Amino acid sequence: MAEVISTNPSTGETRSLGFAESSDDEVLAATRRAANAFDDFANRPLSWRAGLLRAMAEELEGDAANLVELAHAETALPTARLEGELRRSAFQLRFFADVVTDGSFVDATIDHASDSPMGPLPDLRRVRGAIGVVAVFGSSNFPFAFSVPGGDTASALAAGCPVVIKAHPAHPATSVATFAALERGAQRVEAPEGTVNLVFGFNAGTTLVDAPSVSAVGFTGSVGAGLALWERANTRSVPIPFFGELGSANPLVVTASAADERPTEIGTGLAGSMTLGVGQFCTKPGLIFVPRGESGDALVAATIEALSSLGTFTMLSSGIADHFRRGTEAIGAISGVRALVQADAGGDAHAAAQLYEVDAARFVGRDAYALREECFGPVALIVRYGSTSELRDALLATEPSLTFSLFCVENDRDSRWLLELGAQRSGRVVVNGYPTGVGVSWSTQHGGPWPSTTSSAGTSVGAAAIERWLRPVTFQSVPDELLPPALQENNPLAIPRRVDGILQHKN
Amino acid sequence: MAEVISTNPSTGETRSLGFAESSDDEVLAATRRAANAFDDFANRPLSWRAGLLRAMAEELEGDAANLVELAHAETALPTARLEGELRRSAFQLRFFADVVTDGSFVDATIDHASDSPMGPLPDLRRVRGAIGVVAVFGSSNFPFAFSVPGGDTASALAAGCPVVIKAHPAHPATSVATFAALERGAQRVEAPEGTVNLVFGFNAGTTLVDAPSVSAVGFTGSVGAGLALWERANTRSVPIPFFGELGSANPLVVTASAADERPTEIGTGLAGSMTLGVGQFCTKPGLIFVPRGESGDALVAATIEALSSLGTFTMLSSGIADHFRRGTEAIGAISGVRALVQADAGGDAHAAAQLYEVDAARFVGRDAYALREECFGPVALIVRYGSTSELRDALLATEPSLTFSLFCVENDRDSRWLLELGAQRSGRVVVNGYPTGVGVSWSTQHGGPWPSTTSSAGTSVGAAAIERWLRPVTFQSVPDELLPPALQENNPLAIPRRVDGILQHKN
Repeated sequence: MAEVISTNPSTGETRSLGFAESSDDEVLAATRRAANAFDDFANRPLSWRAGLLRAMAEELEGDAANLVELAHAETALPTARLEGELRRSAFQLRFFADVVTDGSFVDATIDHASDSPMGPLPDLRRVRGAIGVVAVFGSSNFPFAFSVPGGDTASALAAGCPVVIKAHPAHPATSVATFAALERGAQRVEAPEGTVNLVFGFNAGTTLVDAPSVSAVGFTGSVGAGLALWERANTRSVPIPFFGELGSANPLVVTASAADERPTEIGTGLAGSMTLGVGQFCTKPGLIFVPRGESGDALVAATIEALSSLGTFTMLSSGIADHFRRGTEAIGAISGVRALVQADAGGDAHAAAQLYEVDAARFVGRDAYALREECFGPVALIVRYGSTSELRDALLATEPSLTFSLFCVENDRDSRWLLELGAQRSGRVVVNGYPTGVGVSWSTQHGGPWPSTTSSAGTSVGAAAIERWLRPVTFQSVPDELLPPALQENNPLAIPRRVDGILQHKN
Repeated sequence: MAEVISTNPSTGETRSLGFAESSDDEVLAATRRAANAFDDFANRPLSWRAGLLRAMAEELEGDAANLVELAHAETALPTARLEGELRRSAFQLRFFADVVTDGSFVDATIDHASDSPMGPLPDLRRVRGAIGVVAVFGSSNFPFAFSVPGGDTASALAAGCPVVIKAHPAHPATSVATFAALERGAQRVEAPEGTVNLVFGFNAGTTLVDAPSVSAVGFTGSVGAGLALWERANTRSVPIPFFGELGSANPLVVTASAADERPTEIGTGLAGSMTLGVGQFCTKPGLIFVPRGESGDALVAATIEALSSLGTFTMLSSGIADHFRRGTEAIGAISGVRALVQADAGGDAHAAAQLYEVDAARFVGRDAYALREECFGPVALIVRYGSTSELRDALLATEPSLTFSLFCVENDRDSRWLLELGAQRSGRVVVNGYPTGVGVSWSTQHGGPWPSTTSSAGTSVGAAAIERWLRPVTFQSVPDELLPPALQENNPLAIPRRVDGILQHKN
């Protein structure tokens, strides 16, 4: 197998990490180790599981300086951003420890034996348990929060599922070091051997999705890779659920009233949001709907001005920068598109912010599909509309997305229909704010309708992310001592349950 | 298009219903009507939605005598069974009215703006809303409870989703009449035009799954048809979730101690369960694991004796009876299989109970796959085991299933490992009871790992069935008056919510 290589996108320097990509045998062995760990791991007390997640958080924080340095060298992301991202990842592990301790995620439900209009009903008790081994595909753009120690790993472990993580090739050294922190956390609490596993290489990814011991997949990345693996997960002899968070063009609408009220503020903020993390966020606002006319012009002028002072960036890899160059060229090449900001940053991994503009009537053209696709990187397309019906048609021509943002004023006559449309076509609607930044909370939804995610019922961030890795089982007439603790009569886990139809707080 | 024909399986008589199978245009028009109803329907108050479900239940009950007569003529199922099934269907609609009124299914979650270790978090509120138009495929074996007015229809309407139902060809007249009852219920509460729709014919089914306006599918039926439609749902340009409840061999294990304690009782009960509804239940116990030796022999003898007094049955259709004959012939043709009860009931839709026996060592043979498949109808295969390791190997050779039943004694040394294995490989484990009979309750799980269902996270019976038709959306910094009622600050729906991490009962 090829050696695993770490590349510094700022300098183009490469170094071998001294080991090879994982062979098929190694990947299958990792999935078997995880499968062997499953029973023991899934059946440990919830309090122990919470302790594991907290130990992992501590180990990440304990090695923070080293991890940030490694990630900075491999991603060119600023140190402050990476420090914040690492804090977020540790917070996320602790947050899932809270979710585990809360215990409502198992959805414990008890119906005592009773009479019904159809005759006697037996004692029925339902609980959601761990689905099995979870394969995790880390992303390029968040070397911590959506990679080895990220949300998929945290939520899968929280659900009681051992993980086999496929490291993203853009940051293998960071993956090795963050994995070591997870392993130290696991060892501290004496987790079963095989609870966390790491594999490398493109081939390892396909082998992992095919592996008989794998029960579900969490993926964050590009549409191309995601759909290929999704199809693979569906064509196994035993298909498995595949939760892919793919791409999203993220429409952002400015109503006429909002453009009138605060054009400079909105336009300037937009420049910041679309270039945050060098525009390498799946929540980057990519399609900006701005009214025609003076106020809209002022808004766009503010964006142009803010962008022009930004200079050049280094993207995550030269491959991603190449893709960005091709994508922006395709946008600029479409007739009717006006380039507002277009700088050449040189080759390799370098890039500069770009801004394009098109009329809404042109945007909806059948031949203008490239305008409506996500272009990963610091670029946005301004779509100028002249009427609400033009705006509506343009929004309906965009693909469903992870987010939908709306800038409006108080009592804006366009707020309601725009919010309704946004809620139907995205997983998160934002009012008077930018979509970049996904809080880790009980109320987070990070996942929208196809094609932004392969399963719109799932979220890859927030408490509900754990639901992806659970499978319900009902126990009928099972003696108390043989029931899982979550369902035993005296509620030994002290978790919220629904008993005979009534929601009950903890005992 | 071909005419829609109603067949009486007892007599073989057929009659035309006087209309043709649905054309593609008719199917697409039905999905568009449903899509047009969606916004209005999904946004009506939960109390109104509960009223719709109750009105439908009343209309079904009001026409009970006629419906049961129609269904009896088309299915040959006994009148008493059909009366019970209709009561169950009405109960199910009312149960979902209760689920709707309870309101916890929307999973309303509120996190007020706060500070976090990653800086300030905005106000985030998450709710699950209706996914869109749901296509429902009724089954042959439950003309009410898993057909037009069945669990998929009830749960989809409860979720706020209009439905387009594809009638099963085995009972078209029953489908027309039950649909009319649903429509009368809809009209009584002035539901939007297009809330419920009915289509007929094989071609209508494939067109329905392909229809752009359809957002999800609920299916109960055979593995062959289910997998073909599942694949179709996955290969649309916009794939949609497909919840298929397919087939299941339903292992039933008798431990050595249980066989010693009450062989006659268990063996006699088995005969009743495996022939209930002429064995045409997806929960029929098909694989019966019985210890070798005298107690096991006595158990099997009791089953044989009980079966031999049953006479002949009429199956749901001659096609199903043909399939049963071919399936049982395939079982009997495998070397090492002993026919214990094997009667010829003549042709057409007629059938008689059959019982086969095989040694566990033979059962696991690679060439004996036909033994491990579901055979729909009044047949079971007794698998005789000589040791727990033989039993374990045989159970691991069976495919995961909807149910797993265990007959054991108090403090049985084999209970624990068998229950754990059963819970890993099925959706419902039953102790000292037969798996036929699926109660409608908060704790019901009717769905197991692949291939018994296409999505093991889903259930087609019980309160959680509603979850299949929901999609979460998060509202960020949205002014109160623009939020869905479930998320407004003063909780106007008075539903349980999680606020700032704390579960709250109704206001």
